[in-house]
Amino acid sequence: MTLRIYLSGEIHTDWREQIIDGAKGLDVSFDSPVTDHAASDDCGVAILGAEPDKFWHDHKGAKVNAIRTRRGIGQADIVVVRFGEKYKQWNAAFDAGYAAALGKSLIVMHGPDHQHALKEVDAAALAVTETPAQVVQILRYVLDSTLP
Amino acid sequence: MTLRIYLSGEIHTDWREQIIDGAKGLDVSFDSPVTDHAASDDCGVAILGAEPDKFWHDHKGAKVNAIRTRRGIGQADIVVVRFGEKYKQWNAAFDAGYAAALGKSLIVMHGPDHQHALKEVDAAALAVTETPAQVVQILRYVLDSTLP
Amino acid sequence: MTLRIYLSGEIHTDWREQIIDGAKGLDVSFDSPVTDHAASDDCGVAILGAEPDKFWHDHKGAKVNAIRTRRGIGQADIVVVRFGEKYKQWNAAFDAGYAAALGKSLIVMHGPDHQHALKEVDAAALAVTETPAQVVQILRYVLDSTLP
Amino acid sequence: MTLRIYLSGEIHTDWREQIIDGAKGLDVSFDSPVTDHAASDDCGVAILGAEPDKFWHDHKGAKVNAIRTRRGIGQADIVVVRFGEKYKQWNAAFDAGYAAALGKSLIVMHGPDHQHALKEVDAAALAVTETPAQVVQILRYVLDSTLP
Amino acid sequence: MTLRIYLSGEIHTDWREQIIDGAKGLDVSFDSPVTDHAASDDCGVAILGAEPDKFWHDHKGAKVNAIRTRRGIGQADIVVVRFGEKYKQWNAAFDAGYAAALGKSLIVMHGPDHQHALKEVDAAALAVTETPAQVVQILRYVLDSTLP
Amino acid sequence: MTLRIYLSGEIHTDWREQIIDGAKGLDVSFDSPVTDHAASDDCGVAILGAEPDKFWHDHKGAKVNAIRTRRGIGQADIVVVRFGEKYKQWNAAFDAGYAAALGKSLIVMHGPDHQHALKEVDAAALAVTETPAQVVQILRYVLDSTLP
Amino acid sequence: MTLRIYLSGEIHTDWREQIIDGAKGLDVSFDSPVTDHAASDDCGVAILGAEPDKFWHDHKGAKVNAIRTRRGIGQADIVVVRFGEKYKQWNAAFDAGYAAALGKSLIVMHGPDHQHALKEVDAAALAVTETPAQVVQILRYVLDSTLP
Amino acid sequence: MTLRIYLSGEIHTDWREQIIDGAKGLDVSFDSPVTDHAASDDCGVAILGAEPDKFWHDHKGAKVNAIRTRRGIGQADIVVVRFGEKYKQWNAAFDAGYAAALGKSLIVMHGPDHQHALKEVDAAALAVTETPAQVVQILRYVLDSTLP
Repeated sequence: MTLRIYLSGEIHTDWREQIIDGAKGLDVSFDSPVTDHAASDDCGVAILGAEPDKFWHDHKGAKVNAIRTRRGIGQADIVVVRFGEKYKQWNAAFDAGYAAALGKSLIVMHGPDHQHALKEVDAAALAVTETPAQVVQILRYVLDSTLP
Repeated sequence: MTLRIYLSGEIHTDWREQIIDGAKGLDVSFDSPVTDHAASDDCGVAILGAEPDKFWHDHKGAKVNAIRTRRGIGQADIVVVRFGEKYKQWNAAFDAGYAAALGKSLIVMHGPDHQHALKEVDAAALAVTETPAQVVQILRYVLDSTLP
Repeated sequence: MTLRIYLSGEIHTDWREQIIDGAKGLDVSFDSPVTDHAASDDCGVAILGAEPDKFWHDHKGAKVNAIRTRRGIGQADIVVVRFGEKYKQWNAAFDAGYAAALGKSLIVMHGPDHQHALKEVDAAALAVTETPAQVVQILRYVLDSTLP
Repeated sequence: MTLRIYLSGEIHTDWREQIIDGAKGLDVSFDSPVTDHAASDDCGVAILGAEPDKFWHDHKGAKVNAIRTRRGIGQADIVVVRFGEKYKQWNAAFDAGYAAALGKSLIVMHGPDHQHALKEVDAAALAVTETPAQVVQILRYVLDSTLP
Repeated sequence: MTLRIYLSGEIHTDWREQIIDGAKGLDVSFDSPVTDHAASDDCGVAILGAEPDKFWHDHKGAKVNAIRTRRGIGQADIVVVRFGEKYKQWNAAFDAGYAAALGKSLIVMHGPDHQHALKEVDAAALAVTETPAQVVQILRYVLDSTLP
Repeated sequence: MTLRIYLSGEIHTDWREQIIDGAKGLDVSFDSPVTDHAASDDCGVAILGAEPDKFWHDHKGAKVNAIRTRRGIGQADIVVVRFGEKYKQWNAAFDAGYAAALGKSLIVMHGPDHQHALKEVDAAALAVTETPAQVVQILRYVLDSTLP
Repeated sequence: MTLRIYLSGEIHTDWREQIIDGAKGLDVSFDSPVTDHAASDDCGVAILGAEPDKFWHDHKGAKVNAIRTRRGIGQADIVVVRFGEKYKQWNAAFDAGYAAALGKSLIVMHGPDHQHALKEVDAAALAVTETPAQVVQILRYVLDSTLP
Repeated sequence: MTLRIYLSGEIHTDWREQIIDGAKGLDVSFDSPVTDHAASDDCGVAILGAEPDKFWHDHKGAKVNAIRTRRGIGQADIVVVRFGEKYKQWNAAFDAGYAAALGKSLIVMHGPDHQHALKEVDAAALAVTETPAQVVQILRYVLDSTLP
């Protein structure tokens, strides 16, 4: 069966595209959160009506996004979570915890600077990577038993 | 039955003590991660042997800590997760995601500065608080139906 | 072990007290939602801060109440749901559906006027009663094998 | 994968058709209860034999309908529950509770008049809508990341 | 999606064929235990080697049959269990209990003579039928909303 | 912790008493269905009102009994199911299937005459016994590692 | 539906090929761990970077392999575990325990020499075989009701 | 709450006693399989009757032992599995797999000679130890946050 992968986390670099491109020809499917930052922030009020209070503005949007996110994680065989250089990225860590509790195979991607701060997340993962190429190599190995 | 609460997140202020003190007289029990920062960082190598590589040093420790953490969250009725002013606190967000996936009642505590960055975590919570006193008031209300 | 019962639904008559009184001497424990109507409506804003918009006022309160409600249903052996004569009582039907999905033993209580409207709820129940005395008789039979 | 949606609740207006029409072209599938009121009321006795007592007449029918309803909710990614202007609609609230306990993404639809009475149901939802168009917009956003 | 039905119980009449024939044209699939009585009795020793002791002869066979049976029930939306006129048919009742504990929709089929002896099984069912035609009518109604 | 045992099946001999007597001094607790045959048959109508139709008379009673039965099986570590010499005993086989699907440790008790008819039930059991003394010996061994 | 089989255990003989060849024409699909011994040992460091310590070298590889293994077992209807003549084969026994806890149908394959040492594993299985041909015969019987 | 530990694996050295002694004063409880080798081998036939065939002799015993083993693992917070110097110890690896699939915190204990052969088991563990003293130190740390 097709290997289903959910790509969670950082949305400001092209790491998802690199993985998807690298995995061409493999029997995989990819899902991810909405990566259009503005749409992701405003989806709640754009559909359900404006909110004067920023908390509820965000709340409405986060819940609409959760419809997509939880389904994506719930259907995945593998959840890849990337932590980038910037921002708090608490939603990435939240997704990692959510995936871990569901028993999903977790692959984490981050640079060496974040190693200590991410040690609990790394400890729940089956692989800790630094680059999209490594994720692709894992997918290829898991499907085809071939190593780089 | 005793209401079981797990207090996750920030370890550098006395918010846990404030909640535990405030809840005196209520039928509650509290659990938390190890809050001794040095012990938490070094438990793996102190028990299982030194590691020259910082990654594995941290890895060993994070896994030993996970024995306590996952049991604490798994047994809790309510998981309170506090995000403080400093550090990345990805383990706090990880715990929140883990608790959410298990269907635990989640209470988040953070200041207004973190509101936007925590919107996905807040959206999974049954209450978003700013102070330990508010958490105590919720516990009292849940147990005794009394409001402040 | 003590038989745990959750008493959900109508809060404007003394049906809960009748059941609790009638069950004196049995090895049972009772839980219920907060039955102080005003406290139940205002708990969210009283603890977490006022909301100008009635929707969010109610939303905050309903979520705080859910901390108690979901734990109560989740820990119960038997969930009794009473539909009274007045109001929409959608939360009662919601609790019944929630309990049914968790596989809890469901006892419904309502007058004959509501029979047709409650047929789906009744179909999920192991007993459909009209009076608190009948609920007590069931509890006594389940525990002690004695019939009235 | 196809997004599966279960449309529960009110059966006397064309809200289901509006959603299904609006979602043309999206990768979605829809399921719903039997919406032929007479068939839904009489299916039990029509197939399994007449009952002189209205309670058992309804009981037989409600159980046959449950075969369809529980499968529909159980297979859905999203459960939309609409509360109309009339009737008790306890089965709609029951379905909402059932879906919530299964961890389904819940979208509620109702007019402002029912806001207070539905606050517990709304609190369990990821979106509270008023119109079929809003539901369609959510489906489109969840699948295609596009906003209206 | 295709409605999956498991046909458990009596193997000496053609009730399965009647249901399968009657359901022609519906989007259904059927599974059942091995209905060749001799093969079902001897499969264990035929494949895994003879046993001098009848208990182990039967034990080996019952376990091999369980590979098929548990998968069939586990994948079914609806489990139909028919109790015929003869034999103990404890495996039919066992399958009914197994299906009930998994939350499957249970349809029981038996004649009026067995009504009292099967009351616990009937109480766990969503429909109690006497004829294959009734089962077909339920399947048609569940899929197409049409009554006979 | 106390070993919890549910004693299901035949109610016309004193096998339960023999087990309970034999297990004196062990850290065990026992539960069972209501074994007063008349009470078990009539509990539904005695509490919830008479039914002219025998099917619904039995139906009401079987459901009230299910409140006790399902809790008893659900809380048990070990489910012992005895098949006696007489009657259809389909409820015993139903309980065995229900317990098996929940992953309970199943001990079956029956005479050699029923061996072939019970082969599917025996195949799901961890022990097939003939006498109450054997059940007691198993309980003692499981708790204290001592053999007869 | 296609019968999904996971072939776990010994990797130094052609037993997998024999089963796959023998099952030609049956509606089955097969999955297995990576059976290239060198790739399986080195996959972690080949993708994620070298480790001077053999423990972490192996640890990285075992976790990457677990991505494939746990998915394979999790999706299987039947898990076949073969114990060969050589090596410790603890991973085979680990897989058997993992599969048993998930309620998978377990088929064990080993020679008579290992009978006593594997008694706990055999006791959890639905069939204990010695040859690939026996496994094929079981698959054919489970799917087509035909015996050799 | 008391920390519950299951001590699985090797039965020919006093490692269990060392852990239990070392943990004196901690809020822990211990369970284990029957460690009397002869009783463990013969329990089936001693209670349920002799078997001329060694396979069934062992089979009966292994199933009776499973009543204790599965309960012990199922109730444990932590499962410690020790692999000694001798024997195949497949039941130890089976228990480790079983515990892993249930999401238990797994601690493995073995000497360096077995490192490579146990890499899959170690990869599923939260701690890999060599001595009983290390296990005790983990228990103390998990409960009291104190390091050696």
